[in-house]
Amino acid sequence: MQQVIYRRFGHPTAVLEVVETAPADLVEGQARIKVLRAPINPSDIAQIAGQYGVLPQMPAIAGNEGIGRVVEVNGDGIAVGQLVLLPEQGTWVSETVGNIDQLVPLPEGDLDQLAMLAVNPATAYLLLTQFVELQAGDWVILSAANSAVGRYLLPLAQARGLKLVYIVRRESAVAALQAAGADVVLVDGPDLAERVLAATGAPMKLAIDAVAGVTFGRLAQTLEPAGTLVLYGGMSDQPASIDVGSLIFNDVRVRGFWLVHWFSQASQAAQMQVYGELTQAVAQGQLHAPIDRHFSLDEIAEAVAYNLAGERDGKVLLAPNGL
Amino acid sequence: MQQVIYRRFGHPTAVLEVVETAPADLVEGQARIKVLRAPINPSDIAQIAGQYGVLPQMPAIAGNEGIGRVVEVNGDGIAVGQLVLLPEQGTWVSETVGNIDQLVPLPEGDLDQLAMLAVNPATAYLLLTQFVELQAGDWVILSAANSAVGRYLLPLAQARGLKLVYIVRRESAVAALQAAGADVVLVDGPDLAERVLAATGAPMKLAIDAVAGVTFGRLAQTLEPAGTLVLYGGMSDQPASIDVGSLIFNDVRVRGFWLVHWFSQASQAAQMQVYGELTQAVAQGQLHAPIDRHFSLDEIAEAVAYNLAGERDGKVLLAPNGL
Repeated sequence: MQQVIYRRFGHPTAVLEVVETAPADLVEGQARIKVLRAPINPSDIAQIAGQYGVLPQMPAIAGNEGIGRVVEVNGDGIAVGQLVLLPEQGTWVSETVGNIDQLVPLPEGDLDQLAMLAVNPATAYLLLTQFVELQAGDWVILSAANSAVGRYLLPLAQARGLKLVYIVRRESAVAALQAAGADVVLVDGPDLAERVLAATGAPMKLAIDAVAGVTFGRLAQTLEPAGTLVLYGGMSDQPASIDVGSLIFNDVRVRGFWLVHWFSQASQAAQMQVYGELTQAVAQGQLHAPIDRHFSLDEIAEAVAYNLAGERDGKVLLAPNGL
Repeated sequence: MQQVIYRRFGHPTAVLEVVETAPADLVEGQARIKVLRAPINPSDIAQIAGQYGVLPQMPAIAGNEGIGRVVEVNGDGIAVGQLVLLPEQGTWVSETVGNIDQLVPLPEGDLDQLAMLAVNPATAYLLLTQFVELQAGDWVILSAANSAVGRYLLPLAQARGLKLVYIVRRESAVAALQAAGADVVLVDGPDLAERVLAATGAPMKLAIDAVAGVTFGRLAQTLEPAGTLVLYGGMSDQPASIDVGSLIFNDVRVRGFWLVHWFSQASQAAQMQVYGELTQAVAQGQLHAPIDRHFSLDEIAEAVAYNLAGERDGKVLLAPNGL
């Protein structure tokens, strides 16, 4: 079997290795899972670089999300052939072993979309629901709108009657988002707040940022008094910068969002409610993020370089056992 | 009578003028007040520069705080000779006229300390009480600790059994704050969080910043998970900058504080409770901020330049009718 591992933190093209290892025997209560899809998420890259809130022991297996099919069981509780979410850490592998009682069975469906269920749809859902009480007709603004989270947010917001301002970093991303049904799509820039106001005539109730840097402060300027700005990523590699006046005079409230925190704090019932709803929506095609392309594990260096280059039109996934 | 006015927003040394005007006649229900002391606050400078949340019509009279003595009345409700807080706007004058029913009588006491009652002691009090539920033994960190707000915070925090880390911008300010009883006094710098931890062995529950810029993010790094960072000033003239990881991984919550908002939202009962407590504490000498020096209104250009130069050991006040 193949594993993508790293022995030190660093740039993923420099530190990732593909190694061949012998499959372990199953002990009672375990299942062997053939990995079908594992996405490359920004948080995977940050973790490999050592710039993340939880860091693994070395050597570490890369990847934190994916799906697979059960190929062997030692015990009861799951059937060979069942599609499952992979156990959390170390998903960039051709096969893995999990405890049967911790495996989450999935309905059959689009493998790519199901492989991205655990992180980004949940992030989008929680960003919209955990910080501000939103009513139909309220405006929400989102940076990095062409990201997977951005794409998932659109149907979730539309289902609630919310209006979305989508902010992207390049003009070439505008048309696809307009076609997807975003109310307003604008390119990030110095006069963002004025352009948002001109396009919407309304202040925002909630701003959601994954860029940080100056974009963070620009989003703050679009908010209504006492509006909330939530940061969930730092794609600019810059600290988040915000005008003093936005905080003091406009009473903007700033929060961060990390899915790992939510998992550690939300009740199991709350988690099952959220994931039940999202699994249904993904399986039925209501939640969908565009896919750019797939790579094999052997192509991992090319895959992460391509993923970091930025000029993508969707998610990059690993398909360790072919398409 | 003399007034310090400005006809356009700008640097105070460039736009402030001292004008002589004839005193107005009193109408029924008004009192004439001889101004005894009016402090120069950072918010006054920001307002004159046009960089403030509420801006006056032009021409405007400068100053937003001070005390005076009633010298003439037309109506009932206050006696000639009574010491009063000045009506809010336009306090850098030798005399002013106010509505009797809006004047706040003060007990006799140290004129300098009473003149600074309305803004900074209330700011210090509310910063400590409005954002985080603090218990005896909890740690609070404060930048610009040698400011008037910083000086007022110390006895307020000590009365609650809180421990304070005081951050200053220059080494020369350390000794006086240590002598005043601060638990830990450190000079701002790149490795601030490490030095705070070494000195206290504890994470902070609340961080209070009046500097913004990189100091803002350094304070954030001293906080416990889900700790709160409150900004109430921007002395660095830079946007507030904060690491992505502080927000996302450490779940730091960021708020702004503006006394004007509190006035507009707090009940009159809440305001009277706060000011009653503070007036007593100031009159009895429990709340005290150091005074650097006084200027006359004629010396206003020199006064604001001196105030902005920064190497002060306390507050600069105007004494429009002499000491």
